[in-house]
Amino acid sequence: MSHFADRLLSAIQEKGNPCVVGIDPRIELMPEFATSPALRMGFRSGVRKAITEFSYAVLEAVSPLVPAVKPQIAFFEQYGVGGMESLEDTIRAAKERNLLVILDAKRNDISSTAAAYANAFLGVTRALGEERPIFDVDCITVSPFLGRDSIEPFVATCAEHGKGIFILVKTSNAGSADVQDELLASTREPLYEKLAKLVDDLGQPLIGSSGYSSVGAVVGATFPREARTLRGLMPNAIILVPGYGAQGGTAEDATPCFNEDGLGAVINASRSITYAFGERGVSPKQFIEAVEANTKKMIGDVKRALVGLGR
Amino acid sequence: MSHFADRLLSAIQEKGNPCVVGIDPRIELMPEFATSPALRMGFRSGVRKAITEFSYAVLEAVSPLVPAVKPQIAFFEQYGVGGMESLEDTIRAAKERNLLVILDAKRNDISSTAAAYANAFLGVTRALGEERPIFDVDCITVSPFLGRDSIEPFVATCAEHGKGIFILVKTSNAGSADVQDELLASTREPLYEKLAKLVDDLGQPLIGSSGYSSVGAVVGATFPREARTLRGLMPNAIILVPGYGAQGGTAEDATPCFNEDGLGAVINASRSITYAFGERGVSPKQFIEAVEANTKKMIGDVKRALVGLGR
Repeated sequence: MSHFADRLLSAIQEKGNPCVVGIDPRIELMPEFATSPALRMGFRSGVRKAITEFSYAVLEAVSPLVPAVKPQIAFFEQYGVGGMESLEDTIRAAKERNLLVILDAKRNDISSTAAAYANAFLGVTRALGEERPIFDVDCITVSPFLGRDSIEPFVATCAEHGKGIFILVKTSNAGSADVQDELLASTREPLYEKLAKLVDDLGQPLIGSSGYSSVGAVVGATFPREARTLRGLMPNAIILVPGYGAQGGTAEDATPCFNEDGLGAVINASRSITYAFGERGVSPKQFIEAVEANTKKMIGDVKRALVGLGR
Repeated sequence: MSHFADRLLSAIQEKGNPCVVGIDPRIELMPEFATSPALRMGFRSGVRKAITEFSYAVLEAVSPLVPAVKPQIAFFEQYGVGGMESLEDTIRAAKERNLLVILDAKRNDISSTAAAYANAFLGVTRALGEERPIFDVDCITVSPFLGRDSIEPFVATCAEHGKGIFILVKTSNAGSADVQDELLASTREPLYEKLAKLVDDLGQPLIGSSGYSSVGAVVGATFPREARTLRGLMPNAIILVPGYGAQGGTAEDATPCFNEDGLGAVINASRSITYAFGERGVSPKQFIEAVEANTKKMIGDVKRALVGLGR
């Protein structure tokens, strides 16, 4: 068992870039080579087959290039038990290819219920005389809406099992302003700044030899001005940056999330990497080449933006 | 397809009480009649068997007594794919017994990802030339942290499929104060009041013939003072009240969540109903009798508290 933030930093340095590829299964948009064999199966086996074919092809394309992948669990869950089986397949295959797995789940609840989610994704579950990991990813995203005591069970599980969390601080959607941007009467600061201080505080005991904590934050690429402030409030946090690509954020927009050392953030793209492959009739080889090319383009953009800022 | 709030109000009137029983699978705490057969199986089949045995016994006890059950998905998810299979079993069995199913999932995300969650639990998923419901419950709990635009896909799915949501407004844990109680500089009101107004506004188009909306709110029984204010801000919302029983809330604490007509809220208890059965060696009959007795005691408490307030 090693330390999540140290593992992620080491993978970023090994691959030479901080890019993460999102895996969002949408069967209706997948290439036909993934869905055609599935059409001859029942629904449950079929969705598992289609998603697994798609995920494996994405992993083949991206595993030499990036440090981590980010499956979005909603897109697996919408396919039911077959979708959850394909999530297991995808996690296993990603880890076999030495990719870190950041599961985008935005989970949370109170006390023992939060602990159940932590067990499901980061720890182990005890049942029937056994104790075993369940979905067993490296890291998940967590919502702070229920307060500090709802996040502490996740932090405890991270400490015990060498895992990580990214706490939502400022999400990439326009509506994030409704709650996250509200100025607090007590401090005249927006709620997202209070949350950033909570991330920093919860993360202090989990700082690794890299100088980064296994308690990180989510800050959308769509809000570069806010990102600059947030970077300063959480010097030891790794920032997971969604919103690049299809959501309109550019590599330049994401640069305020990085520290002066050029580290401290990972940038995710999903649709612009995995669904920009042309016709649904592409061959597996053509699909993999398209995903590779899209990933290399993103890596190039991000590296240029970081160099351009002298970082 | 009928209207969720109307269905719930009608079930409350039929059963004569607004009590909901939570189903929180914790295999290590279950009676031996549920877990012993599971010990001879593999992990995945075993957890499905144990949870399903437990859930069916709970449903047998409570289906003549209460309008709805509330499975907590975290406690299923922690057992992996076998746990999710038992969630399907539990939902199906509850609906066969004419119980409404409120899934406590506290899900949310942005745009098409929120829509994927809405499809998973309230709508239908299209894949492989089919369109089918997946977990297909009557209602789920939703987090408002990502703002109005993150909730709208759920509201649209509710309108289309006759389903409902309960939006978290003031949760029952002490730490809920960290975010939900923050006074906003703009209005000098706590965030939970802003969220209550959002619930009221989103719910207006979904008000049924009962006068209640399919967009409801979660307000913990542990905060009766706040509940009084929140009830007034959301006159058409049904309030789901957790925190009764094991979390320390009393029936009297929950009464401010009701309207003058004695309706407008449902009160949930989980552990104090389903895990207060004595020795793990109880027979199925003894377990069912204990769950029945615990449920009847809660119903009595709640009815007395409502009468005591002249409602």
